[in-house]
Amino acid sequence: MSIVTARPELIALLEDSRGAARMLATASTAHKNAGLAAIADAIEANIPAIVAENAKDLENGRANNIGDGLLDRLLLDEKRLQSIAGAVRQIISLTDPVGQVVRGNDMPNGIHLVQVRVPFGVVGAIYEARPNVTVDIAAIALKSGNATVLRGGSAAENSNRILVALIQDALASVGLPRLTVQTIDPFGRAGATELMTARGYVDVLIPRGSQSLIDSVVLESKVPVIETGAGVVHLVIDDSAPLEWAVEIAHNSKVQRPSVCNALETILVMRPAAARVLPAVCERLTQAGVIIHGDVSTREIWPAAIPATNEDWSTEHMSLELSIKVVDSLDEALDHIRTYGTHHTDSIITNDVSHAERFLAEVDSAVVMVNASTRFTDGGEFGFGAEVGISTQKLHARGPMGLPELTSTKWLVRGSGQIRQ
Amino acid sequence: MSIVTARPELIALLEDSRGAARMLATASTAHKNAGLAAIADAIEANIPAIVAENAKDLENGRANNIGDGLLDRLLLDEKRLQSIAGAVRQIISLTDPVGQVVRGNDMPNGIHLVQVRVPFGVVGAIYEARPNVTVDIAAIALKSGNATVLRGGSAAENSNRILVALIQDALASVGLPRLTVQTIDPFGRAGATELMTARGYVDVLIPRGSQSLIDSVVLESKVPVIETGAGVVHLVIDDSAPLEWAVEIAHNSKVQRPSVCNALETILVMRPAAARVLPAVCERLTQAGVIIHGDVSTREIWPAAIPATNEDWSTEHMSLELSIKVVDSLDEALDHIRTYGTHHTDSIITNDVSHAERFLAEVDSAVVMVNASTRFTDGGEFGFGAEVGISTQKLHARGPMGLPELTSTKWLVRGSGQIRQ
Repeated sequence: MSIVTARPELIALLEDSRGAARMLATASTAHKNAGLAAIADAIEANIPAIVAENAKDLENGRANNIGDGLLDRLLLDEKRLQSIAGAVRQIISLTDPVGQVVRGNDMPNGIHLVQVRVPFGVVGAIYEARPNVTVDIAAIALKSGNATVLRGGSAAENSNRILVALIQDALASVGLPRLTVQTIDPFGRAGATELMTARGYVDVLIPRGSQSLIDSVVLESKVPVIETGAGVVHLVIDDSAPLEWAVEIAHNSKVQRPSVCNALETILVMRPAAARVLPAVCERLTQAGVIIHGDVSTREIWPAAIPATNEDWSTEHMSLELSIKVVDSLDEALDHIRTYGTHHTDSIITNDVSHAERFLAEVDSAVVMVNASTRFTDGGEFGFGAEVGISTQKLHARGPMGLPELTSTKWLVRGSGQIRQ
Repeated sequence: MSIVTARPELIALLEDSRGAARMLATASTAHKNAGLAAIADAIEANIPAIVAENAKDLENGRANNIGDGLLDRLLLDEKRLQSIAGAVRQIISLTDPVGQVVRGNDMPNGIHLVQVRVPFGVVGAIYEARPNVTVDIAAIALKSGNATVLRGGSAAENSNRILVALIQDALASVGLPRLTVQTIDPFGRAGATELMTARGYVDVLIPRGSQSLIDSVVLESKVPVIETGAGVVHLVIDDSAPLEWAVEIAHNSKVQRPSVCNALETILVMRPAAARVLPAVCERLTQAGVIIHGDVSTREIWPAAIPATNEDWSTEHMSLELSIKVVDSLDEALDHIRTYGTHHTDSIITNDVSHAERFLAEVDSAVVMVNASTRFTDGGEFGFGAEVGISTQKLHARGPMGLPELTSTKWLVRGSGQIRQ
């Protein structure tokens, strides 16, 4: 099955990654932690040089009018670099997933059977204009015993180049393979496409960034992909919802950080609760600067809402806007979520046990909540320490991904001469 | 992301599958087991009718000269149908994976966090000319709470049609959704291609059959695939290998069932052991009718061997043929496996602890063995009861796949009004 379209130079680079991955697979936790410490030290010791390279990217970005949001994501200053180095140091304290026993038993004939976690091997990442992701993914992959091949995009090329060089020197300084972390930015945009065909060289590919980037990787890739997707996140306010919880959870889910995938987009209120809870909920949201789109019933209670369109129900605003709909039943709410949701995170506020259990059982999302803010869907909050992203697919990993999600497994079979009858 | 190219009639069928999957997701184990019992009963009660439909497929097969091997795989007789029904009954006794708690903890703020197994939803299967797979996959998917969409191929169309009809009636008779199991055979070959584009309708697609079938599904599919692949399986005979184990394990690994993916293809013998073990190993294999391809050193010890070509090292014979190579070191053996292996199953016969541990750690295969026959790589032998196939990919499932491998997970979050600070 040779469908690999990568240039020989890119294949050679990937073969170096495979070689590094082989050594990493059996590297001790202490050795990998020494590499992480060296990376954190190198970043902190080279802040002026990194900031200078980053300034070139910022200048190019301004010249290309990429916009304030992208410029802010691109920016590396002393404070951000110290926080990046701090995040690398945190990974040192996390449990190494490699070698963990997942399950095992003895076969009736005396063979010992153990399933253990092993690194994937080579992890590819394709992302856009976020140089912090370079260090983030490299460090998480290192701790889980993987080599990394990075495509960070032309907008952050100078920042990524110096970061990768510093990481490589740091790894070499503690005797780990220099080519554990490599960038394919010099291969340009076509390099990313070639990487997606590199079956046998890349064990898993993780796209991080805009929906269009993720879509193109998911659809074009011939290597296995873990999809991290958009969140059209719902909050259902049940008849029995305590008013204070409804108000505070709606506010927190939308306002605490509106630009991320676990932020709230749609509130579904049960009709009997609407008149009781919507005024306080809308009041609190409006005070926080949220623009409310409402259906007819919502606007009867809160006339300041602008009319919700059909498109609103499937929109991820990533800003201080949300939509509210009054529903007649839990079934209608579940139907709405099935139709417009993205299987990310959905929450219900209720004091009714049977509604809570139905919601948990029937909503087909990575994270389903009762009486909690949707902002809790997060590797850090779940106690994973580091987060690779939030998977919205069902294969391999679902929801926040930590270190174990960057591993595969292997069956170890120890016999004493057994043959099959 | 609309890249779905399926015809409206196929989309409608898939929507029916999704509807069935929704009901199955919350069906009780007892209810699903009742469905399995009804399926087994229906097969046993309709043996003459199934055999009559199967005869049409056999006749078409003979008219199309599909060959004895395929005709044998196609054949359903009373004994085989009773064994198929028996396999369905066995699945009743297996643990239902749905709802199993994978892990969980309380967050510092008191939120209860539990990760539980949930069905994938809709499982697609594309396979060739093996009507037993129709019942097999439908039953395993049902027990794990999934709906099934089957493409069984034109060669077995009549057999599959009656089997699916019997399964649907059996499911309806116990109040489970009739459309839990559907075939897309009426959509022809194009239907399979359309199924591969049906993102959002099919949660996972499993190809079973020839390498070319698997390759085309892996490369063309836009929905997540679990790859079940070929096995170029190795047996390393170390210096310290006990002679009897070497002889019996080599024989069992090759001869017990040569047509399957866990059968042995290449023996790598350490040079110091070659003169001691090869005569007895080759004698035993030859007596069993095995044709031996040997490198120069092997032929010096066993002149009857035919010269091994480079191509032999990457060939999966699936018949009574194998290749033997003498290697100078464990490193050379590991290199050979890295170069020619397919990451399926590899075994070493040794009494040397450090060689055993290096082999287990460094061979990057789904199943790595010490002193055991490669034929043990099997869901039944591992105690899974039923097997969906053997995954050779690293994502989601690796090695024999049982019921849990047909599930995803979901995080259940139970709070009491918590918001994120």
